[in-house]
Amino acid sequence: MQLSTRRNFLCLGGIAAALGMVFRASPAYAADAETDSMWMSALTAIQTRRSIRLYTEQPVDDKSIKTLLAAGMAAPSAGNERPWEFVVIRNPETLTQVGSINKYAAYAKKAPVAILTCVNTEREKFPGNGIVDVAACTQNILLAAHAIGLGAVWTGIYPEQDRIEAFRLLLDIPEKVIPLALVVIGHPRPRAPREDQDRFDATRVHVEKW
Amino acid sequence: MQLSTRRNFLCLGGIAAALGMVFRASPAYAADAETDSMWMSALTAIQTRRSIRLYTEQPVDDKSIKTLLAAGMAAPSAGNERPWEFVVIRNPETLTQVGSINKYAAYAKKAPVAILTCVNTEREKFPGNGIVDVAACTQNILLAAHAIGLGAVWTGIYPEQDRIEAFRLLLDIPEKVIPLALVVIGHPRPRAPREDQDRFDATRVHVEKW
Repeated sequence: MQLSTRRNFLCLGGIAAALGMVFRASPAYAADAETDSMWMSALTAIQTRRSIRLYTEQPVDDKSIKTLLAAGMAAPSAGNERPWEFVVIRNPETLTQVGSINKYAAYAKKAPVAILTCVNTEREKFPGNGIVDVAACTQNILLAAHAIGLGAVWTGIYPEQDRIEAFRLLLDIPEKVIPLALVVIGHPRPRAPREDQDRFDATRVHVEKW
Repeated sequence: MQLSTRRNFLCLGGIAAALGMVFRASPAYAADAETDSMWMSALTAIQTRRSIRLYTEQPVDDKSIKTLLAAGMAAPSAGNERPWEFVVIRNPETLTQVGSINKYAAYAKKAPVAILTCVNTEREKFPGNGIVDVAACTQNILLAAHAIGLGAVWTGIYPEQDRIEAFRLLLDIPEKVIPLALVVIGHPRPRAPREDQDRFDATRVHVEKW
């Protein structure tokens, strides 16, 4: 808590200057800064993001959805191929059918919205790279959702062939397009705060060689 | 620039309170907050991250590398399988050999450090899901690097079989492990600020169905 009360109130000038720096760095997105949650730092968002599967009945507005899609589209991709496409789903009948495709995602029926992230293989410059690109894009969406105070969860589709086929059928998706994940989204139901979890595992780190 | 100079200097109390909220939300990571760049908001980090391939000669300290690895390990994964493993490479001789595996990544020889992200398929609970998990993990590393003021770039390995084999040979990586990406990292060389780019593309968004 290095920058807690004492520095907050003693060094306001410095903090304001730092904030100014951040905002000057990104004028276009500063325009969206309406809530405190916009101030969540990148490292905090990465570390405190959790899979959220229970939502309030509050709808998610279009502006928030656009923020999430813009975050997805800011991901890097092989040769800048940007192979992603998205289906935004709010229809409760469609969301109810998700559970019959993937029983572990049945809670989608109680969510206000979901975003299907897809690889359009016809947009690939480097065949086979699209999956990796759209996975990075999907992670951006999850982080952005958390950063603006929404709760989201990545429900897997690729590489399970039965789920891929079922989503194609449900949403009229062409054969050349691979649905990768259904990101289920809503305003998180209040719950007891969780212990801060340190997920760092030194056994996974190798130095210079395996 | 909604929260620019005027509000920075008129509403310092409110801003300080907001900052306090962010830091209370994540005490463990607040302890790392040493630089202004730690204040970069998540959305700003997502939107302003770019591939950085030119670095100064300044080394990257171990603490920063640990921050990046911890960010990677905070990614979601299928059934929480966490199939990732990492090789941290600082040896200039090793980094020089990268260019002979992937000519588009030859600048690695001038970088102080690189992190190889890998899928350990023996850790997969759901075979085939590891690639997607480690792609999300790699994106977290890129965002965290940008957030703490480093420059990084994702150089692709998977699914190119020749690169996979060459990295296995170079770094003694076992057959059951798939190298996914080499993230090349350093302190970015100063350069002219770029125009803010809006990468949102409405043609990629489908509503309810394809």
